[in-house]
Amino acid sequence: MKFSIEQKDLYKALNIVRRAVAKNKTLPILTGIYLKVEKNILSLKATDLELGIKYNVNVDSEEEGSVVLPAMQFINIIRELPSEKIEIELNEDKWQLQINCLNSLFKINGFDPDEFPSLPEVEASAEFNLPAAKFKSMLEKVKISTSKDETQPALTGALFVVKAEEVRMVSTNTYRLSYVDSPLKTNLDQIIEVILPGSTLDELNNLLEDEGSIDIVVDNNYARFEFAGIELISRLIEGKFPNYELVIPDEFNSKFKADLSKLHGAVKRASLIAKEDANIISISADEGIMEINSTEGSAGYAHEELSIELSGPDQKINIDAGYLIDVLKVLDSEEINIEMIGPLNPLVIKNEDQAGGKFIYLIMPVRAQAS
Amino acid sequence: MKFSIEQKDLYKALNIVRRAVAKNKTLPILTGIYLKVEKNILSLKATDLELGIKYNVNVDSEEEGSVVLPAMQFINIIRELPSEKIEIELNEDKWQLQINCLNSLFKINGFDPDEFPSLPEVEASAEFNLPAAKFKSMLEKVKISTSKDETQPALTGALFVVKAEEVRMVSTNTYRLSYVDSPLKTNLDQIIEVILPGSTLDELNNLLEDEGSIDIVVDNNYARFEFAGIELISRLIEGKFPNYELVIPDEFNSKFKADLSKLHGAVKRASLIAKEDANIISISADEGIMEINSTEGSAGYAHEELSIELSGPDQKINIDAGYLIDVLKVLDSEEINIEMIGPLNPLVIKNEDQAGGKFIYLIMPVRAQAS
Repeated sequence: MKFSIEQKDLYKALNIVRRAVAKNKTLPILTGIYLKVEKNILSLKATDLELGIKYNVNVDSEEEGSVVLPAMQFINIIRELPSEKIEIELNEDKWQLQINCLNSLFKINGFDPDEFPSLPEVEASAEFNLPAAKFKSMLEKVKISTSKDETQPALTGALFVVKAEEVRMVSTNTYRLSYVDSPLKTNLDQIIEVILPGSTLDELNNLLEDEGSIDIVVDNNYARFEFAGIELISRLIEGKFPNYELVIPDEFNSKFKADLSKLHGAVKRASLIAKEDANIISISADEGIMEINSTEGSAGYAHEELSIELSGPDQKINIDAGYLIDVLKVLDSEEINIEMIGPLNPLVIKNEDQAGGKFIYLIMPVRAQAS
Repeated sequence: MKFSIEQKDLYKALNIVRRAVAKNKTLPILTGIYLKVEKNILSLKATDLELGIKYNVNVDSEEEGSVVLPAMQFINIIRELPSEKIEIELNEDKWQLQINCLNSLFKINGFDPDEFPSLPEVEASAEFNLPAAKFKSMLEKVKISTSKDETQPALTGALFVVKAEEVRMVSTNTYRLSYVDSPLKTNLDQIIEVILPGSTLDELNNLLEDEGSIDIVVDNNYARFEFAGIELISRLIEGKFPNYELVIPDEFNSKFKADLSKLHGAVKRASLIAKEDANIISISADEGIMEINSTEGSAGYAHEELSIELSGPDQKINIDAGYLIDVLKVLDSEEINIEMIGPLNPLVIKNEDQAGGKFIYLIMPVRAQAS
């Protein structure tokens, strides 16, 4: 392997594939990045066996070949090199890579590339295409509600439902739930219903730009996402996703709009006191006023007010402040719609975009006494 | 206590005094900030018994009084409040502070202010004044060389020598040494020679602006620094500072200039490989070239070259790359002067500013074999 490449092109490519590098060191080879040069194309890939990312860059190559390099060390060196042409050459006897750039010379010890696992092939049983910005906006809203509890694997991901004219994503940790759907044409003649892992949602969200589109292929075990030259392959989570439709209330008793940024500020402040205990706040909606109160605990007490216009009877509910802050962070409208039924029913936040996309966020009440 | 103050003024004041708040919780009262209102002046202070900071702000006060508040909680709340007038009122029965700002109300539980220690009085036995920018630049250069080893207390600080027409600071962890002096007129009729703690150097450096001047008073146990309305009182370190003058070489065999930013880049890159082992690099100076090599270790090998003009014989020395990086970070000249005697003598970096200030930095050689 012998090729040359601009520092900034290589650094960009490494920053894409690094997102799939294994975080734990059980299998040392997976903490590396696989490089292969063939016909003036450098292919980079990384995988932690759940997620795999592949990215190609054009290079000037003199000799083909492949190697696996320790990811962090290789990336740190490339980051510190000047923005100039880099010459790279592999000594295949020792899997040692030599890097030349201006007056710098590095030799890094790598691994035998034959030990690196192949990324899984995804059968093209269902193939469709979505606008990247729209898909990214859906990911942001469901990734907050996934569970961290590995004993219920289905809840650590998001349900991904694709129909001919609709795309839907749902996630829940049983204390809160995100539901988002969009009227997007996919021309599928079947209904796809799979569970994407939480880490896949995170990395897709990190890598997706607001432009262009994303090609998606799904089979029984894997999903493949292609966008901006990036190929991301994710294992699907097996198991049954809970029946979320039963949980989302059809009706409500009271409803009001609140200013997003004022509400965000108020909840963040109340949480500064509330989090000294269990981070529980009470939300009250009165005719003209929404009140947010922390419990009166060892740390003190917080009280916030916002003016609202309420339709329906007064309401009061206790919720986890963190769940409300999470959703306020990902919304970008000026106002949000809040619906309430009673103190033992979820608080529901609903937003609809101009294209007919719907977002529903449920926060279950907690019984703890807030003042 | 009852007063009102602009959010940004209070937040600024809290961010100044927080730097002296105790980091460990052995004495809970020291994790707090002391507030006192007297005649339209709010005085804030904090201390960890080694360092104390006091700062005054003008307020509109209706009632005098004092209290101690948990620092982080109070600061976090003030940070999140809108940039508006804040009304503050103390309930002295419970040491509970009530904070009102627009539609927000907070109650924070504080401590009895009588339990808060007084900041020590410093006898005005020696008083002088220095330009803030000059003093800050000296602090930056000595704070890097202080030792973290508490068994030799004198080395955890910097020697501070003040004469009628000269100010000097010195620090060393025995593996490297910083020496800086400036021809500043202090009009002192005595010589001051005290040791300032490392944390005092850090906080003075953090708080000092590049404008104005700093008033300094020193007695046998404490030093007081006054600048920009801030009063910082530091305990002095007892003990004898080593005889640094014996360590700084008078002469050298070889000398060259190196481009600061190129050298910085080269050492940072070589260190990426070297730090996988003991972070030892070898520095060689040849007639036209300076070479930096890492050891050839398990991680690989790094080699860097810079063009230089050497006077004197060739040199080669092994040093800790971290010590060289530390000094390159705080220097702002385009070039640095490097002097060498031989492989068992320190590498010496010397810089002189236009006002006649001198900076000398010594890095002791290590015996470890670098290639």
